[in-house]
This record gives sequence, structure tokens and C-alpha cells, in this order.
Amino acid sequence: MNYRLTHLLGSFTIEQNKLTTKKPTKTLSELPLEKHLPVLLQLKDKKNFAKLYQENCKLTKQAIKESVSEDQLIIQAIANINELDKTSNLLTKRLREWYSLYLPEASEQITSNEKFVDFVNSKTKQQLTEEFSIKETMGADLSKPDVAEIILLAKTVAELFTLRKKHELYLEKIMKKYCPNFLELAGTTIAAKLLELAKSLKKLAMLPASTIQLLGAEKALFRHIKTGARSPKYGILFQHPFVQKAKRSEKGKIARIVADKLSLCARLDYFKGEFKAPEYRKMIEEKLE
Amino acid sequence: MNYRLTHLLGSFTIEQNKLTTKKPTKTLSELPLEKHLPVLLQLKDKKNFAKLYQENCKLTKQAIKESVSEDQLIIQAIANINELDKTSNLLTKRLREWYSLYLPEASEQITSNEKFVDFVNSKTKQQLTEEFSIKETMGADLSKPDVAEIILLAKTVAELFTLRKKHELYLEKIMKKYCPNFLELAGTTIAAKLLELAKSLKKLAMLPASTIQLLGAEKALFRHIKTGARSPKYGILFQHPFVQKAKRSEKGKIARIVADKLSLCARLDYFKGEFKAPEYRKMIEEKLE
Repeated sequence: MNYRLTHLLGSFTIEQNKLTTKKPTKTLSELPLEKHLPVLLQLKDKKNFAKLYQENCKLTKQAIKESVSEDQLIIQAIANINELDKTSNLLTKRLREWYSLYLPEASEQITSNEKFVDFVNSKTKQQLTEEFSIKETMGADLSKPDVAEIILLAKTVAELFTLRKKHELYLEKIMKKYCPNFLELAGTTIAAKLLELAKSLKKLAMLPASTIQLLGAEKALFRHIKTGARSPKYGILFQHPFVQKAKRSEKGKIARIVADKLSLCARLDYFKGEFKAPEYRKMIEEKLE
Repeated sequence: MNYRLTHLLGSFTIEQNKLTTKKPTKTLSELPLEKHLPVLLQLKDKKNFAKLYQENCKLTKQAIKESVSEDQLIIQAIANINELDKTSNLLTKRLREWYSLYLPEASEQITSNEKFVDFVNSKTKQQLTEEFSIKETMGADLSKPDVAEIILLAKTVAELFTLRKKHELYLEKIMKKYCPNFLELAGTTIAAKLLELAKSLKKLAMLPASTIQLLGAEKALFRHIKTGARSPKYGILFQHPFVQKAKRSEKGKIARIVADKLSLCARLDYFKGEFKAPEYRKMIEEKLE
């Protein structure tokens, strides 16, 4: 009997040597092997086989249903944050170009995309020229409906930004329950991105620290393996505040230390351990000094 | 005196043989060439040169200001429609994946992106399972905040769709004034896309009909010229209802006919001619029969 069949039959129970799915007292796979045979022989009866099929479908659906865990939710949310970043960048670029017909100086002076969208949304041309002391604008005097159309776009882009913020709060909320240690040490975005790359907390907990250090640097890693180019020192972890703050020559070292503690955190979270992340954070800070 | 300088000096006037910018009665470029010399000699004086520079800046700014025409507005709006299409597709894909954790059967049964977003927005899981007679869903029972997050995304995507519709109405409004003939025969989206490719109505009016026929098929055209592959028969015009309706073997022919009349329309519009598009439409329809 191969593994798959054992697994299927595992849902059946034997009562007085008859195949049944009611009242599971002892599943087939718990029985010794020699008792399997009479059950298997019962499968020759087509009725029993149909039952097996039905039961199997039910179980599979149930399994799929139950396979949705916080991992999936986190992965979807962070993937959507990435896509929102892409889209809002694209649309803000268009907004800048469009608005530049009206007031080209504003787009030049406001470099932050979010601020730019906010300004276009909330202020008129006159208010903006005063605020940025633009003496003579090169922009055309567009009619009201023309400007209204631009502002409609700005409002939609602003909503993309707010949605991104809401997603971040949501992520923080789930992860605070699901992986508090990992969240505490990595921060929302980095924690979610690492989870996305590892596919699940379980897999993340099983990874060696050196792999966590390089998650997100797959391209560079394979280039290193293939062509003997320099090995990467960090992937996603490059964005971690500790690594960001470090000197260039020490970034790799610090990424290793952070990855080391992150790996411990992931294991603590997966095996429902204590909340030790602040301790680890202190240890890293001490080492940094 | 080169052309550029003549052009600059054109803004200056001569009064009793003195260089001045007030009360323009006769510009320099209107004077015979021999009278230019004394003016040019006056430019040796640094004061006069500074004046020239200032005046030139002013004129350039003015020219930039006035260069914004309906062409630019149409081009920005249609470019934004294209980008909205891209973004809403990207985000709906993510929405489908995310919602599939909750009710995978819905995404399968609703193929239209817009409808899907609408359904997710307006109906609960129970309503959807009833409407599409889904007996046993494989989706997980997510908690309320988890579902709320998905619906937030759906709402934002829905707004991208409405913004697109608003842009279309806006485009139709401008083009009805600016190029009524062209709009009537090509339809909003195609007319705007052709304008975008030609950069302006003026340039569109100057293009031969055969170029209009191939606007949007540049890649195929250059492949044809370079490698001798088959020449393209249509670009953007492929989406025109007349071409869409035609048999495959006749699509090229009909694209040529439509492009021919469109070119006439663009010229009528640019030179402020009559409204003749319905006539042309009839002519094409007769030919099609």
C-alpha cells in the first residue's frame, strides 16, 4: 500500500471489521498493517469505492480550506503594498507631467511624490505660487474643467497612498499576534518581505541564518555561484535600520549579526516561545557600539 | 544676422532711431535689412543688452505658456487612461488572488475584471455563493478585519475604473470642440490615441492617409523595412469598429478606407472646416456593403 493510499484510508474507521466514516474511533493508518488487507478488499465493492472518493474530495477541500493561514494573508498584503508602490509611482509621474502644463515650477520644487499629490489636492495654483514664491509661472491658464480632471487624478493617487498605509497597519496587527519577535526586530515591511520570500513562517524558521541574510539577493547569489563574482552580503536586510546606519565596510558584518538574531526570532515565533526580541535588539546594539 | 537673433530682436521696436520695448509700433524684423545695423550697434551698450536678455526671457516664458493647447490636454488624458488600464489590471490580478483565499470559486466564474471588483465590493460571501450556486467553497473563513482589508483594495480599484470613465467623458468633451469630425469618425479612444501618436492635430492633418493607417504599428513597419517581413496593414485602427467587423481578409482594405476619410477629417478640423464626418461615415458604410 503506497503512502498516498494510506493517507486517504486514514480517514476511514473500522468498526466491527466494517468500513465506515461515522464516529471516528480509530483510523485505518493507526492499525497494524495486517489489518489493512480486509479493508482494502472491501474497496472492490463499487459502493465502498464511491464512498472513499466522496470522503476524499471532502477531506481535500477541507485541507485546502485549512491551509489558509496568516502566512498567506501576510504574503498577499505585502505583495499588494509592492504593487501599490509601483502603481502610485507610475500615476504620480503622469500627474507631474500633466500638472506641469498648469504650474511646471511646483513639480520641480516638490520632490516627494506624496507631498506633491497632497499639494495638488489641497491647494490652488495661487496658493502654491505664493507658498513656493514662484514669481512668473510658465504654466498655462487652464480652464476649470481641465484643472478639475487633473485634481481627480491626484485624489485617486492620494487614495493609493492611504490604502498603502492601511495595509501596513493591518500587517503590523496580524504579525504582532503571529510573529511578535520577528516583527519587533525586523520592522513591519522587512518582516513581511522576508516572510513573502520564505513563503511561510515555518519555512523561515527552518532556514539557516545565512540564508535569511541573503533572502532577496538571489540574483547576485547565483551570479556569484555561476561566474565567481563577489558574493552578496545582504538582500532585503540591506533596508534594515541597523544595516543602513552602519559604515559601508561594516554593512555585511552587521547584516550577518541581524540575520542571526532574526533567525532565532523566527524559531521562537514558530514554536510559540517567549518574547525575547527586545533582548536581542539590545545585544545587537551593544555589539554595534 | 542669423535667424535666431532676428527672431529675438523682432520683439524690439524702433522709435526715432532708439531701441525700446514700449508701445510696439513696428518690430525690427519688419524693417528693411539696412536699418538693422544701427540697432545692432546699440547692443554693444551693456544696458541695452541686459534689456534684450530680459525681454527675451519674458517672451520665451510667454511662448511656453501659450504653447499649451488642447493637443497637450488630450495627450495627457489618453496617456493617463492607458496607465489606468495597466494599473487596474495589475491590482485586479492581486485582488483576485487575495480574494481567492476567501472564495476561490468567484474569481473563476467572473471573468470580467470590472464585474469582479464590483461584486467583491457590493456583495458578501454568502450572497455570492448563492448567486453563483457554489455548493461547497474551498475558501477559508477569514475574520472580519481580514476581509475588510480585501474590500478596501476592491474599493480603490473600483475608483480607478470610475476615474477612467470620467477621463473618457472629459476627452469626448474637449474633442467635440477641438476636432469634431475626427472624433465622430474615429470614436473617443481611437481618436485620442491617434492624436497622441501624431503629437498634435496640426501634425495629424499634415500626415498622409497611409501614415495614419499605420500609426501604432511602428514596430511592425520597421521590421518590414529592415528584414523584409510582411508589411503591417493597420496600427491603432485595428480597434476601429469598421475594421473589427470586417472579414480577416478585408481588414487591411477597410483600414485603408477608414484612414483615408480620417485624414480628411483631421484636415477639416485643423482648418476649421464644416462638420462632414457623418457623410464620410455613410460613404464608408455604403462601400462596406
